[in-house]
Amino acid sequence: MTTISVLGLGAMGSALAGALIKAGHTVTVWNRTQSRVQPLMTLGARGAATPGEAVAASELVVVCLLDYASVEAVLAGAEKALSGRVVANLTTGTPKQARSLATWVEAQEATYVDGGIMAVPPMIGTPQSFIFYSGSEPAFERHKAAFELFGDAFFVGPDAGLAPLNDIALLGILDGLLSGYLHAAALIRASGGSAEAFTPLAVRWAGSMASLFPDLARQIDRGDYRAEGGSNLAMQAAAMDQMVEAARDEGVDPIFIEPMRTLIHRRVTDGFGTDDSAGVIELLFLNGRGKRNTAA
Amino acid sequence: MTTISVLGLGAMGSALAGALIKAGHTVTVWNRTQSRVQPLMTLGARGAATPGEAVAASELVVVCLLDYASVEAVLAGAEKALSGRVVANLTTGTPKQARSLATWVEAQEATYVDGGIMAVPPMIGTPQSFIFYSGSEPAFERHKAAFELFGDAFFVGPDAGLAPLNDIALLGILDGLLSGYLHAAALIRASGGSAEAFTPLAVRWAGSMASLFPDLARQIDRGDYRAEGGSNLAMQAAAMDQMVEAARDEGVDPIFIEPMRTLIHRRVTDGFGTDDSAGVIELLFLNGRGKRNTAA
Ligand SMILES: NC(=O)c1ccc[n+]([C@@H]2O[C@H](COP(=O)([O-])OP(=O)(O)OC[C@H]3O[C@@H](n4cnc5c(N)ncnc54)[C@H](OP(=O)(O)O)[C@@H]3O)[C@@H](O)[C@H]2O)c1
Ligand SMILES: NC(=O)c1ccc[n+]([C@@H]2O[C@H](COP(=O)([O-])OP(=O)(O)OC[C@H]3O[C@@H](n4cnc5c(N)ncnc54)[C@H](OP(=O)(O)O)[C@@H]3O)[C@@H](O)[C@H]2O)c1
Repeated sequence: MTTISVLGLGAMGSALAGALIKAGHTVTVWNRTQSRVQPLMTLGARGAATPGEAVAASELVVVCLLDYASVEAVLAGAEKALSGRVVANLTTGTPKQARSLATWVEAQEATYVDGGIMAVPPMIGTPQSFIFYSGSEPAFERHKAAFELFGDAFFVGPDAGLAPLNDIALLGILDGLLSGYLHAAALIRASGGSAEAFTPLAVRWAGSMASLFPDLARQIDRGDYRAEGGSNLAMQAAAMDQMVEAARDEGVDPIFIEPMRTLIHRRVTDGFGTDDSAGVIELLFLNGRGKRNTAA
Repeated sequence: MTTISVLGLGAMGSALAGALIKAGHTVTVWNRTQSRVQPLMTLGARGAATPGEAVAASELVVVCLLDYASVEAVLAGAEKALSGRVVANLTTGTPKQARSLATWVEAQEATYVDGGIMAVPPMIGTPQSFIFYSGSEPAFERHKAAFELFGDAFFVGPDAGLAPLNDIALLGILDGLLSGYLHAAALIRASGGSAEAFTPLAVRWAGSMASLFPDLARQIDRGDYRAEGGSNLAMQAAAMDQMVEAARDEGVDPIFIEPMRTLIHRRVTDGFGTDDSAGVIELLFLNGRGKRNTAA
């Protein structure tokens, strides 16, 4: 069993530490606010008084704080203890932040692994959870068994920025799903319905629509957006107009659906009315990177 | 077997007519542009020269056109033939439009059923497809077997506006899912990755996150948004900031994720930083209808 320290005992850090303790690892924990340490000590963790003490205690240091600013501040305070350690930082951040932190950690003669957690805390350790890892592949392989206690562990490449890139891409999907769900539930409630009664079909619908992603992916990779599934953009532009009008009729702010309406109309105006909706992606590339097909 | 006419042979109307013909119904079809009629006649449909001729030919008239403006124009041209018919209008529209069309159809001594199709054309007739119906329940029951040829048939109430309300609510979820997916795929492509390689985990992730809808629904119906699942809004506000920053770093327009970022920050500013994201719904109600909980 590995010695493992966990820095950060928010909702997620506590779930991670809990999974490690349950599996029999020797776990040392640290958190800025002391009150969050006791529940983990009750489960069997040792408490460290400072980040430096926690880092010194273990081979593997799992970090899960609010953001990279807090990670940098906390690790700077533990600088002297870092040499020889593996730092697995599971805090959400940007690819750029991860690359810059990796460089700093390696300068302390430590090894860096980045992780992007695709789960909410109650899913940690269940088959629903998975995590992207990037950075040092040898360190990932060495500690893979521990990482798999959190959920499926996918190594996506030696560039430390790749786990956050994949993480943040999937968070974009969560964000869209949540935006869509809240918009839908607002319509139902504003017209006197029950969100709970409506929701089973919403779950079924979301699953059925996510099954269209592979078709979209093929179109996107080819840069060929001709409508195959039979949902052309001109029809979708009309449907989006109805959706915005219906939201206003029911007293619901259409803020979550306005961007898609705007971009679909722009794409129709640009001459792509018979294309599929995947072509909207062309309007997202700000500087040509990724662009495939812009002339009608 | 019922005699059924289908007005409108776009991608969706053609799929509907095809499913009816395949099941052995006597099907008459009409479309504004003649070229779309021939493929259905090859399958066994009769062609009608005018909407009036199509309406006169059958007990049940299925309408699937671009929008309500086209439905109103086409049915006005068939006014004299409508008496005694059941009009099942499966065109996407608003609850208001459906109620007003129902009133007009009933004034022609015909019976109105509205339908909201939750499928793309290739799904029609498969277990993935379902349709909401509202309006005349006796007419729905009489023709239920025919409607079930399209997919599961759910009657949601005698108010004709209820099928479009549920339809448009679920379209909001599709819109969110599509927004999120295109944002994610743009990030992956802009940084040189492949959308197809990324997509299997995106499908898994969307399914796993849709399983959170029932929890959100419970919070929304109770108007109590305290974080249970361990994802508080203050943490999510920080994550949204990373997401927008990462999009800009990679050259991707964050237009699809900006609304959620704005509303999450507003909710944190309003004093709900320890709540769950479901509370964002309170900011969508424009005029108090649906609002539950606004004071911290
Ligand atoms: N919860 C989720 O659903 C979820 C899912 C995937 C990824 N994540 C990621 O996991 C990370 C942690 O999220 P969480 O849900 O655990 O958040 P949380 O419950 O709000 O906990 C935040 C943690 O960060 C610490 N912290 C914040 N600022 C700090 C600073 N300046 N110095 C030292 N410590 C600081 C907090 O310490 P105190 O206790 O002293 O405040 C606490 O331990 C985030 O990057 C988040 O994006 C979370
Ligand atoms: N396709 C989908 O994925 C999907 C899914 C759910 C619901 N729907 C709904 O189904 C309806 C039809 O969609 P679709 O995919 O079949 O669209 P489509 O392929 O673009 O076909 C549009 C149909 O409307 C007709 N039309 C348009 N304006 C007209 C007018 N002024 N007068 C007479 N006919 C007119 C067109 O006739 P011409 O052939 O003469 O142009 C064509 O038959 C829409 O309300 C849509 O929202 C579609």
